[in-house]
Amino acid sequence: MTAAPQPVADRIGSTWQEMADLHDPDLPGWSRVAFTEPDTAGRHWIADRMRTAGMDARIDAVGNVIGVLPGTAPSAPAIVTGSHTDTVPGGGRFDGVVGVLGAIEMVEAFREAGVRLRHELRVVDFANEEGNPQGVMLVGSRAISGHLTPQHLAATDAEGTSLADVIARAGLRPEEIDTCRWDAGEVAAFVELHIEQGPVLEQQGASLGIVTRIAGIENFVVDVLGRRDHAGTTPMNARNDALCAAAGTILAVERLAASGADSVGTVGSLTTSPEATNVVSEMARVTGEFRSPHAERLAELRDRLAAATAEQDAAWGTESTVRWGQVDDPTPMDDVVSEHLLDAARDVGHEAVRIYSGAGHDTVQMAHLCPTGMIFVPSAGGRSHCPEEWTDLSAVVDGAGVLAQAILRLDERL
Amino acid sequence: MTAAPQPVADRIGSTWQEMADLHDPDLPGWSRVAFTEPDTAGRHWIADRMRTAGMDARIDAVGNVIGVLPGTAPSAPAIVTGSHTDTVPGGGRFDGVVGVLGAIEMVEAFREAGVRLRHELRVVDFANEEGNPQGVMLVGSRAISGHLTPQHLAATDAEGTSLADVIARAGLRPEEIDTCRWDAGEVAAFVELHIEQGPVLEQQGASLGIVTRIAGIENFVVDVLGRRDHAGTTPMNARNDALCAAAGTILAVERLAASGADSVGTVGSLTTSPEATNVVSEMARVTGEFRSPHAERLAELRDRLAAATAEQDAAWGTESTVRWGQVDDPTPMDDVVSEHLLDAARDVGHEAVRIYSGAGHDTVQMAHLCPTGMIFVPSAGGRSHCPEEWTDLSAVVDGAGVLAQAILRLDERL
Repeated sequence: MTAAPQPVADRIGSTWQEMADLHDPDLPGWSRVAFTEPDTAGRHWIADRMRTAGMDARIDAVGNVIGVLPGTAPSAPAIVTGSHTDTVPGGGRFDGVVGVLGAIEMVEAFREAGVRLRHELRVVDFANEEGNPQGVMLVGSRAISGHLTPQHLAATDAEGTSLADVIARAGLRPEEIDTCRWDAGEVAAFVELHIEQGPVLEQQGASLGIVTRIAGIENFVVDVLGRRDHAGTTPMNARNDALCAAAGTILAVERLAASGADSVGTVGSLTTSPEATNVVSEMARVTGEFRSPHAERLAELRDRLAAATAEQDAAWGTESTVRWGQVDDPTPMDDVVSEHLLDAARDVGHEAVRIYSGAGHDTVQMAHLCPTGMIFVPSAGGRSHCPEEWTDLSAVVDGAGVLAQAILRLDERL
Repeated sequence: MTAAPQPVADRIGSTWQEMADLHDPDLPGWSRVAFTEPDTAGRHWIADRMRTAGMDARIDAVGNVIGVLPGTAPSAPAIVTGSHTDTVPGGGRFDGVVGVLGAIEMVEAFREAGVRLRHELRVVDFANEEGNPQGVMLVGSRAISGHLTPQHLAATDAEGTSLADVIARAGLRPEEIDTCRWDAGEVAAFVELHIEQGPVLEQQGASLGIVTRIAGIENFVVDVLGRRDHAGTTPMNARNDALCAAAGTILAVERLAASGADSVGTVGSLTTSPEATNVVSEMARVTGEFRSPHAERLAELRDRLAAATAEQDAAWGTESTVRWGQVDDPTPMDDVVSEHLLDAARDVGHEAVRIYSGAGHDTVQMAHLCPTGMIFVPSAGGRSHCPEEWTDLSAVVDGAGVLAQAILRLDERL
């Protein structure tokens, strides 16, 4: 296997700095919230960078930036890589950005070394991977995979503004959404380079991870009905305290998720009624989620949460109702692509570990179109979605090097 | 001991109905929130009722209605009884009302039977016993005992309206607060007839309770600091989840309070930050209270809550800070007055049980001035501060009869 040309660390470092400079001065951290001015500026800056690296670049109707490097075999389907450059409000400088800048650097290094691929190569900066106040994630990759529906576009935020309005205000064309869609036949494989956003690689002392599966998500809302009582006059044994049952449910979620290495569970919010300090709670609402890369494990957690809330009801004399919300199924990565990624890492001197992704990624949408794989580089302290998010430049360079090697492998073998 | 004249059930029933009719049509239940129009109407209606029953009646600067029946020994200090007629928003028809109407009925029965007391008798409808959005309880009885401070009057609600403003808007004179104060020398004893507001009498099959102590209250706020993390990418064993530690603290409050029969503990509200369902909580705030009639028990619960939060911190890697707020000390009732109340109950054929009060009462303030005692009548199902609050008319009549007998005893023995 020929070795891919090395990415140039200084160049990645300086483009990363220029990208970081394009952030919202009115928000904490390094915010580039989708469809705001800094995000639009970033989109055009990325298209320019792609052109400088030798690609044709265009921006589609929802804001995906697509760079194309033609292949030597015009009839071969495209190999695709990329990630996103939008951030959560108050986010950091690595989530998504590493995969876009790493891919552009790879193309630049190919050009300098005179490497020509057989397949067409597409590098994508997917629009709005992070959520929005309309509650839709992976907007750009959904549009490409054909999974951005009219319902998604019509979804509104608390002020009644639809996602379509927000996209249109950024100068894009939500009414032309169908033009964004790719056919499965035109793509051979998709590989995404991304930061881990968790502490596992660092804990294992691993420099790289190859993702085997992306976790599925089950959202739940547990409504607990107790009895409102006077906090001073009602003896402890005569109460039906909704908040106590809710507290038991919170701890049950933690315990159930921790009972296996392949799941996480989080209660993110709890509300009570009445919100008075001297009244026994009549109602409590527990909102949270389970994630696991395995559908069977999610089903098991679902059943066990139902049993756990029934136990709480028996203990406290309350009535709990569990509702399950939007469910994302686990997404397995393609075995063949993943083997190529592991081999590519070895080619350039890294022993990568297999790892689950607990976070969702544009790869989930691309998996509707073609075989997919993901390369993770470590996140310092596992921190992400915060200004402290950090990955060493050397790790970014390593990731881009493995990506380049993997693209060469796929170009040769697919 | 001469028997007191029997209260007339029909008369209590009809005055109770007239009082209940004076409620706020815009609020649920039988709301007569302090210093609103229905409360002002109630105040004047009570003064009229007092005059009809043969008393001089006046309304003081904060809205206490004071009915006076002169005694035959002009130099003797006054015996005082009464309660309040304001309600919580969404409250019922018995809390406070029973003690005011029962006392007025007693005076009416004394007049009809030609009973003359040696001591002056004062019947008080205390202003604003229930809390207000300014956070001050027992407003009228505080004014009488000299414990309504300029700080209390300056306290504001969320909109910045002070308690003094609210009182002034009801046509009263908060600037003349000093004129409300009574001297300790002018009162010999205070007795309050009230509904239990809890289930203990009903559970014990007792028709009457004589209060031995009114519980003290310790308010607490526990602030838990954890670490904000991605709910998908952070393994369960790498988290410092503030909400899990808060849930453990909620259950510890319940367990500690239930570990003795002489205490209650309630967490009334819990807030988290960020309020997102897919983020591990960085902060949680647990707000609640302990109550016990015994100061030593409150001190013990304080120490044990500190230990429990430290245990939670050790388990979850969080940092909890416990702050203790406004503390009301337990108030013992006077032994001599309480013996007279028990004897008075026996005189009229009731075996009253000794009971703690978990709720605060105007009696707490009157205890600053003179020996005090309380008579409880049962609350159906222990419900209170809700529209379903209920006490049978026969129990109200029994309570008023015991009150009358007790006043005769105190008049003879003090």
